[in-house]
Amino acid sequence: MITVYGDEKSGNCYKIKLTLHLLNIEYQWQVVDLMKGETRTSAFLAKSPQGKLPIIELTDGGVLAESNAIIGYLASHSALIPEDEFDKALMYQWMFYEQYTHEPCIAVARFIQLYQNMPVERQAEYDALHAKGEKILSLLDQQLSGNSFIIGSQFTLADIALYAYTHVADEGGFDLSHYDNINNWLERVTQQSGYVSMFG
Amino acid sequence: MITVYGDEKSGNCYKIKLTLHLLNIEYQWQVVDLMKGETRTSAFLAKSPQGKLPIIELTDGGVLAESNAIIGYLASHSALIPEDEFDKALMYQWMFYEQYTHEPCIAVARFIQLYQNMPVERQAEYDALHAKGEKILSLLDQQLSGNSFIIGSQFTLADIALYAYTHVADEGGFDLSHYDNINNWLERVTQQSGYVSMFG
Repeated sequence: MITVYGDEKSGNCYKIKLTLHLLNIEYQWQVVDLMKGETRTSAFLAKSPQGKLPIIELTDGGVLAESNAIIGYLASHSALIPEDEFDKALMYQWMFYEQYTHEPCIAVARFIQLYQNMPVERQAEYDALHAKGEKILSLLDQQLSGNSFIIGSQFTLADIALYAYTHVADEGGFDLSHYDNINNWLERVTQQSGYVSMFG
Repeated sequence: MITVYGDEKSGNCYKIKLTLHLLNIEYQWQVVDLMKGETRTSAFLAKSPQGKLPIIELTDGGVLAESNAIIGYLASHSALIPEDEFDKALMYQWMFYEQYTHEPCIAVARFIQLYQNMPVERQAEYDALHAKGEKILSLLDQQLSGNSFIIGSQFTLADIALYAYTHVADEGGFDLSHYDNINNWLERVTQQSGYVSMFG
């Protein structure tokens, strides 16, 4: 059985959980609390040299890191990945966008507010992330105009990757109420068969 | 024919060029100079809503962004992508690592030094990137210990993605001379059939 090493509050970890539930794959979840330094122990670093969550461990001992690479592996040959090569590339385009642009802004603002309780020395950074974050959310809202899902009519891993931190963006102080396309899309994701919530 | 919109000095753009040459795919290159504001024109923004390089445009008008998604598309069904699903996931793991961790450090230090000529207001950031960058290069050197290429014996897109900014890390002030495994690997990449240099 696959073992997931994760932190329940982390959007990157939630991507793995959501994908496993959508695909009805059995797994066990090993809680690792990064705020307690559990990602810096020698046992964990032996599995994950970067000391980062999430990772998965297979029964043969193989370990994978990077949330979007992990869900790509779990969803191999499933309907969550388009068969058409161009559509598949569009899916990866949005997954790289998520990791390079969206996550370092939306997730970091949430980390400062939710995990760190707004330390005064990060206030200027938090404000800058908010200015950037509104542009990111506007671009996402625009992409979802006329599209049911991120790359079009098919629900793919790009939706899972972008849903993870967008649906809890309010915990980073973002007001999603004026992004109609995003709100309708968030609702459509929850309607997928096998959907599970972050703490479900 | 595929059109690449790119800046020759950009490592992210060079990934596309290198992949096209390694696979012997015909293309035309449209120079876009981001320092002259050419990524902010309405014509370019119509193709790339983020205003970022590189993008590719296909003959049917389809546009792809995000360098690692583009090379994934170009290399579909080629020997640059492992057939084994776990190896393919490892390749993507390192490509996400490149975009999330390596590029925002190694490439940004190079941007500050090479493109911006070390403005005094970015000196503190540059110094912080250097501390982080040495950890990143050490991890890469460790990964290449006993491995010919990033994921093992096969040359893959993970090598192209990580080669792009590592081989010009000196232009960001990094001294690679004490990273033996990295130096041997850089040399092995140049020996691949079809290899082209950044300005070649």
